[in-house]
Amino acid sequence: MNRITAARRRAAEHRRRFDARFAAYFDGLTDPAGGALDGPQHGRFPARALELLRDLSLRGGKRLRVCVLNEAAGLVAEGSPPGLAEAAISIELLQTHGLVHDDIIDGSAVRRGAPSVPQAYLDEYPDRPGTALGLAVLAGDLAAFLALRVLLTTGLPAGSAAAMAAEVSDVGASTVVGQFLDLERDFGPVPDLEFLDAVTEFKTTRYSVLTPLRLGLLAAGADPARYDGELRRYATALGTANMLRDDWLDLFGDPGAAGKSLGSDLRSGRRSYVLRALLNADLDGAERRLLDGALGDPWCAEATVDRVRAIARRHGVDHSVTAEAERHAREAAALAGSWHTRWRADAVTFFEQLPAWTVARDH
Amino acid sequence: MNRITAARRRAAEHRRRFDARFAAYFDGLTDPAGGALDGPQHGRFPARALELLRDLSLRGGKRLRVCVLNEAAGLVAEGSPPGLAEAAISIELLQTHGLVHDDIIDGSAVRRGAPSVPQAYLDEYPDRPGTALGLAVLAGDLAAFLALRVLLTTGLPAGSAAAMAAEVSDVGASTVVGQFLDLERDFGPVPDLEFLDAVTEFKTTRYSVLTPLRLGLLAAGADPARYDGELRRYATALGTANMLRDDWLDLFGDPGAAGKSLGSDLRSGRRSYVLRALLNADLDGAERRLLDGALGDPWCAEATVDRVRAIARRHGVDHSVTAEAERHAREAAALAGSWHTRWRADAVTFFEQLPAWTVARDH
Repeated sequence: MNRITAARRRAAEHRRRFDARFAAYFDGLTDPAGGALDGPQHGRFPARALELLRDLSLRGGKRLRVCVLNEAAGLVAEGSPPGLAEAAISIELLQTHGLVHDDIIDGSAVRRGAPSVPQAYLDEYPDRPGTALGLAVLAGDLAAFLALRVLLTTGLPAGSAAAMAAEVSDVGASTVVGQFLDLERDFGPVPDLEFLDAVTEFKTTRYSVLTPLRLGLLAAGADPARYDGELRRYATALGTANMLRDDWLDLFGDPGAAGKSLGSDLRSGRRSYVLRALLNADLDGAERRLLDGALGDPWCAEATVDRVRAIARRHGVDHSVTAEAERHAREAAALAGSWHTRWRADAVTFFEQLPAWTVARDH
Repeated sequence: MNRITAARRRAAEHRRRFDARFAAYFDGLTDPAGGALDGPQHGRFPARALELLRDLSLRGGKRLRVCVLNEAAGLVAEGSPPGLAEAAISIELLQTHGLVHDDIIDGSAVRRGAPSVPQAYLDEYPDRPGTALGLAVLAGDLAAFLALRVLLTTGLPAGSAAAMAAEVSDVGASTVVGQFLDLERDFGPVPDLEFLDAVTEFKTTRYSVLTPLRLGLLAAGADPARYDGELRRYATALGTANMLRDDWLDLFGDPGAAGKSLGSDLRSGRRSYVLRALLNADLDGAERRLLDGALGDPWCAEATVDRVRAIARRHGVDHSVTAEAERHAREAAALAGSWHTRWRADAVTFFEQLPAWTVARDH
């Protein structure tokens, strides 16, 4: 547990430094003296979009991607190499892009404890929902282009800018593919595990773990292609553990720590790892009817969620999903352990500790 | 008129070659043997999105951007330098991205003579409009990332890949800014000319003229920054002439040539150059009432559009907008004429002829 505390302390420091840098980046976008985006000076709408993107971006939570990125650079050398700050901004802008468009797709009114971008526009133009939708689509688009632009127009050496932007443009496309798979998953019968793993891989693992690993190594002057197989294995193991934990928290978590009511996957009909296990369990007739009635019912009552949770516990879903998450976490940690022979000890230790932290977190 | 015919012949040849190359690019995206995008093999939804993007992209019209790009390279050297094909694909994918999201924003069911991407998804999932919307948002996003990815992951030298991708990411952001301005324009009272010019500049001129000029020069090994002022002046003059002509055609054009009914700007309440001139004209009470009733009325009858057209003619809007378009076209042609001392004659001649062609086209 002490080791997890050390990893969390390092992560908090990365987050603190990044958040200041990210705020300065947004200031620069409207500052004619430095790298400003041309256009916002002409109208209210572009300026308002940048404001909303800034607010959403700076409400960012754990900044796990930024931590992975920084520690990946730290595997090779101490300090913050050129391009690392831009890479962090790029990957967090990609996240902002995804959140804005996700909230359109899911119709989510709240994000990170405040109105989502589509909801903010709806609040501003309550009698023009079409315009509000359009503005939200455009705000997400702007974040996507800025995610590439920050790597390419800020004076980084061409070789490193091109390599980093190649990674971000490729993972941007992969993540969209993952979002397609995510929508497809909830269309047919219970998806098989392989399909669920593909959703996890494309929708989150690649841009949340693999790309930050690669960008960190690139910034530090190492060639990530040399370690491609093991970076992918680490990313997949950690990403899967992380997703299993997310899915577990959504039904079995502490609503106080989560800051929201539980059962959102159940209500939205999302075939998460937990719900897949439950749907495949040997339910009796009454259990099956209760589950089928609750799945995908946005108005499903708390009491029904409680009953579904009890059914899931009775059939061992609670434990089996946790055991799977821990198995993947141990696999990731063991892989990172093998890096001691090659890379810097403190960063390697971070990557050994991160999986245990991930599967122990309560929100 | 002979000179315009020569320009059109060259353009047709660029278009023919590009369309074959663009189709091959889409084939490669799902071909494991060459530059395939990872992911589509896992599900139906990603593959369907690529299919819709391909269909829309290959239905592309005049390919003006591709012509400008090719001829810009031809200013410096004969033949097709490395990176030129990727730049053309990039700029047309950016266009595809914009069309998909534009059709969401405008609620357009038809694009390039076939169902728009959002409409195609609605037709496939008539009872799930939220899913259809989400799929269309994602399809547009995918095109945006592919527009950058094609420059960065296809083995171009890092220096030229980084320079081209910098241009595309920057103009991608600028174009989104232009789309915000476009929405803002139709919100308040009659916009002033300066604001309308800013919409034209950011929403179309930059990515349709300035970026193809710059990318063509970059591919040919020239530094577009050396000619920044005159490239911008040419792009703005040509882009404005082009937009004035588009706006003119929408009210005064030949419905047969356009392949659609006229008056779409009037019906959607779009403050085009033509409608701005009309709103600012010295209308009498009856004319004003007719115009105010028609503006922004999606069900406005053909006969009313005919009456608005007659009012516009009576107040000289027909001629004044044409005269403005021709003035900008002459300015662009004169600027290009001054390039003969520096650049290759046949390409310079193309840029001299292009403005006259633009303002004479009937669709």
